[in-house]
Amino acid sequence: MRRIGALEAGGTKMVLGVYNDQGEELARHTLPTLAPEETVPAMKAFFDAQHIDALGIGSFGPLDLHPESPTYGYITSTPKLKWRNVPLLHSLVGDSGIPCAIDTDVNAAVLAEAECGAAKGMKDAVYLTIGTGIGGGVLSGGNLVHGILHPELGHMLLRPHPDDPNPKGVCPYHNGCGEGLAAGPAIGARVGGDAKNLPDDHPTFIIEADYLAQMCVNLILTVSPQRIILGGGVMQRQALFPLIRRRTQELLGGYVQSPAVLEHMDEYIVPPALFPVSGLVGAYLLGKRALEAEK
Amino acid sequence: MRRIGALEAGGTKMVLGVYNDQGEELARHTLPTLAPEETVPAMKAFFDAQHIDALGIGSFGPLDLHPESPTYGYITSTPKLKWRNVPLLHSLVGDSGIPCAIDTDVNAAVLAEAECGAAKGMKDAVYLTIGTGIGGGVLSGGNLVHGILHPELGHMLLRPHPDDPNPKGVCPYHNGCGEGLAAGPAIGARVGGDAKNLPDDHPTFIIEADYLAQMCVNLILTVSPQRIILGGGVMQRQALFPLIRRRTQELLGGYVQSPAVLEHMDEYIVPPALFPVSGLVGAYLLGKRALEAEK
Repeated sequence: MRRIGALEAGGTKMVLGVYNDQGEELARHTLPTLAPEETVPAMKAFFDAQHIDALGIGSFGPLDLHPESPTYGYITSTPKLKWRNVPLLHSLVGDSGIPCAIDTDVNAAVLAEAECGAAKGMKDAVYLTIGTGIGGGVLSGGNLVHGILHPELGHMLLRPHPDDPNPKGVCPYHNGCGEGLAAGPAIGARVGGDAKNLPDDHPTFIIEADYLAQMCVNLILTVSPQRIILGGGVMQRQALFPLIRRRTQELLGGYVQSPAVLEHMDEYIVPPALFPVSGLVGAYLLGKRALEAEK
Repeated sequence: MRRIGALEAGGTKMVLGVYNDQGEELARHTLPTLAPEETVPAMKAFFDAQHIDALGIGSFGPLDLHPESPTYGYITSTPKLKWRNVPLLHSLVGDSGIPCAIDTDVNAAVLAEAECGAAKGMKDAVYLTIGTGIGGGVLSGGNLVHGILHPELGHMLLRPHPDDPNPKGVCPYHNGCGEGLAAGPAIGARVGGDAKNLPDDHPTFIIEADYLAQMCVNLILTVSPQRIILGGGVMQRQALFPLIRRRTQELLGGYVQSPAVLEHMDEYIVPPALFPVSGLVGAYLLGKRALEAEK
């Protein structure tokens, strides 16, 4: 029996798992994300003690995902300054030579949802997480999208909602991107405090649904997913789903003549099935694929 | 020697070619796009007389590209009403059983540019054509993007430019999409006539460059292409390229830390190398791939 390590690396915590090749979880461990000098050795000690045969990582980014690059597997230009230019993959596998793979946490999540979750069996899917930021992963034709970097869906440019008192948003990089307009802090800035206790019919959620629907529309027109999965803290408010579905259809204007978006919108824009472990399961799948590719 | 037929099916003309498996052109024929009852038999007669061993098609759409669908290879909900629900692929190959493939004209174009044109050797590229409409093809990880439909990049939602007198655009489906704001007719509506004779420093081209840059930004954040190729009639105005490149960098705000967009923008957003035959060469490549897959 082979033992596959999985790491979901997040900005506040690290979730580490060990699985057998049937996908059964053998161990799980969670660590707070402190400085890398402290957290990385603790993670390495856990995986070493577990005698893993392969490792998969889904991590916050940006990441260098080019296998031929000297900084492959590094966390690169992250705003979490202590974690900038940290060789995450190499510092965990060292020279052990075990099969390993790394991808973004959100690419890992969409892989997991497509393998055994809300987009099971699909080759084209998108996973968006809307929380303190917005991130997204894209599976296209069965492959995770990379390119010069990897998807950074949260920073897609959106058009301001006419009722938005804060139409430039709160992103330090962009005037009016998805993260700046629709992540948790943007909602908070718009309503002047924590939005958690607002009622579902508060008008700010009409604005929120418009922004997330714009993102869905542009994703449909670009990568034509078979399913869009919306997760993260903001989406814990279930009432957003029908608002987003309706607004997505309005904005599409009937142009995309597919039953998926014309007739089955309730099954098209959905919550994750594997919450809160989409990313961890995806990391396991990345490790499993790496192991199988070595055979 | 095998003979591979290629068809670039356009709304005003059909371009038919025959190639050997080394990619040398053996014949070419152009027909006006009339009613399908007239044009389809004429195309079939040409390919039959050429004794082709395989056929590749790059066509205007929307198309049904799902091989398992009963309407696979059909032109579906096109605004060209006579061509709606036309079984383009089947009507040309009939029951001959020759290997064949169909994709959108713009997916064919990006395939050709990645095989032997402006994105040679790249696995992640986008081709946008800006003419009487806007269409786009996407190659991701070496595969042409399909999903529930196929990319319809032209209808991506954009935000209105503050100096645009016509910020809703001219698309009958969408209030403010790329095609409605930045295709040829949108420029014409904005300036009240044909834009062809306007000088390069006319302010309408600042607006035009902003819209096309918004599209480039959202593509970079979604499919992270190694190159973006801009073709079509509108892009014959070379002066647009530096405006679009500069505006794309401004809108990205330094967020995507890749040399491709930080340092090499002149090589990143480029004209097609195979103009005006990107689509035809792509159709040939689709036919060649189908032939090779049969072996």
